Amino acid sequence: MPKNQYVSSAVIRRLPRYYRFLGELLERGVTRISSKELAAMMNLTASQIRQDLNCFGGFGQQGFGYHVSLLHDEIRKILGLDQGFRAILIGVGNLGRAFVNHIDFSGSGFVLTGLFDKNPALIGKQIAGLPVRDADELSTFCQENTVDIAILCVPSDVAQQTANDLIRCGVTAFWNFTQYDIKVEHPEAVVESVHLADGLMALCYQVKDARRPLETPEP
Amino acid sequence: MPKNQYVSSAVIRRLPRYYRFLGELLERGVTRISSKELAAMMNLTASQIRQDLNCFGGFGQQGFGYHVSLLHDEIRKILGLDQGFRAILIGVGNLGRAFVNHIDFSGSGFVLTGLFDKNPALIGKQIAGLPVRDADELSTFCQENTVDIAILCVPSDVAQQTANDLIRCGVTAFWNFTQYDIKVEHPEAVVESVHLADGLMALCYQVKDARRPLETPEP
Repeated sequence: MPKNQYVSSAVIRRLPRYYRFLGELLERGVTRISSKELAAMMNLTASQIRQDLNCFGGFGQQGFGYHVSLLHDEIRKILGLDQGFRAILIGVGNLGRAFVNHIDFSGSGFVLTGLFDKNPALIGKQIAGLPVRDADELSTFCQENTVDIAILCVPSDVAQQTANDLIRCGVTAFWNFTQYDIKVEHPEAVVESVHLADGLMALCYQVKDARRPLETPEP
Repeated sequence: MPKNQYVSSAVIRRLPRYYRFLGELLERGVTRISSKELAAMMNLTASQIRQDLNCFGGFGQQGFGYHVSLLHDEIRKILGLDQGFRAILIGVGNLGRAFVNHIDFSGSGFVLTGLFDKNPALIGKQIAGLPVRDADELSTFCQENTVDIAILCVPSDVAQQTANDLIRCGVTAFWNFTQYDIKVEHPEAVVESVHLADGLMALCYQVKDARRPLETPEP
């Protein structure tokens, strides 16, 4: 149970990483780990880890460390990964299709329930067990089904229009892979924009700049 | 020309975003912009923008603002996007293939010069004008050609081994899309790991948590 109601976004953004590392430990059969060992694995300090986890009540025991499976499960609940939110993906081109096949949606708290595209050559095809629907059916689909987030893989020039249409259908959370920073006016709306090329440019700087590594983004 | 030799990684990580927004302004034919207008576009404060750009000598003029095309060009040079670094991509599955087609490599400072895979069904195929080579030819290729970065789209369980092989071939910069946090011991090595699902989990938290938006990661 959360100890503090307010948890900084920096801490929240580190939680998926904790979750990932704890999952790896579980797979390797590790049952307990000290904050020092976990810190070494994750390139953090033990005190940072203790501080982060104290936001939610701690979970560690003096002299024992962390119970890997319990902590993994708590973080899963804190993130809400157990709630089975519904996601749809719009734009089943190369990138969209790759995500459908690559991303572990259920492990990330979502069930992928709909795929949409405008391209007649794609409509009706099955991808990862889901039919590609006509983008014109989007609003009907959103009326008839709960949609918690929309993943935007559409071309940049239709990104904002697509977001506007979805907001009108009641969808207020967006994972945006277009190059365009969509703007949403809805008070409850949340947007996570991923600009893949930004990471490549930052890497370019590091290769140029005497290969001096940047600190991990703070997250 | 840089004013300060040391620029924080937070500033560097914001530069691609400046570059992107300035590029959009250029496309729209905007020739000058005040720090206040740019701040409103980018959801930053004017003082933040002035501070960031002062790290490299400023570029703004009192009462005029920023010359969009000059500033765009300066940031391009600071990031090293004009240097034509060579990138190879290993693992031409769904995700790798999507990146080849989706990412603007040349706009991000890189020329994609080689594609590699182990799958006989893919070897020899042409993707975006490049032949898919046998992963066994990787070391020969790296000996005969300059390779500045490797983009890893291989399965997680071979990520570390692939990185080790590449390090031995002299490749020291990695853009890592596997789920595995690769470790590189080389003193000059730089790694940018992208864990797409982490963003989805952070979004899950926001959907759960009364849809309270997280602050933009600090970058």
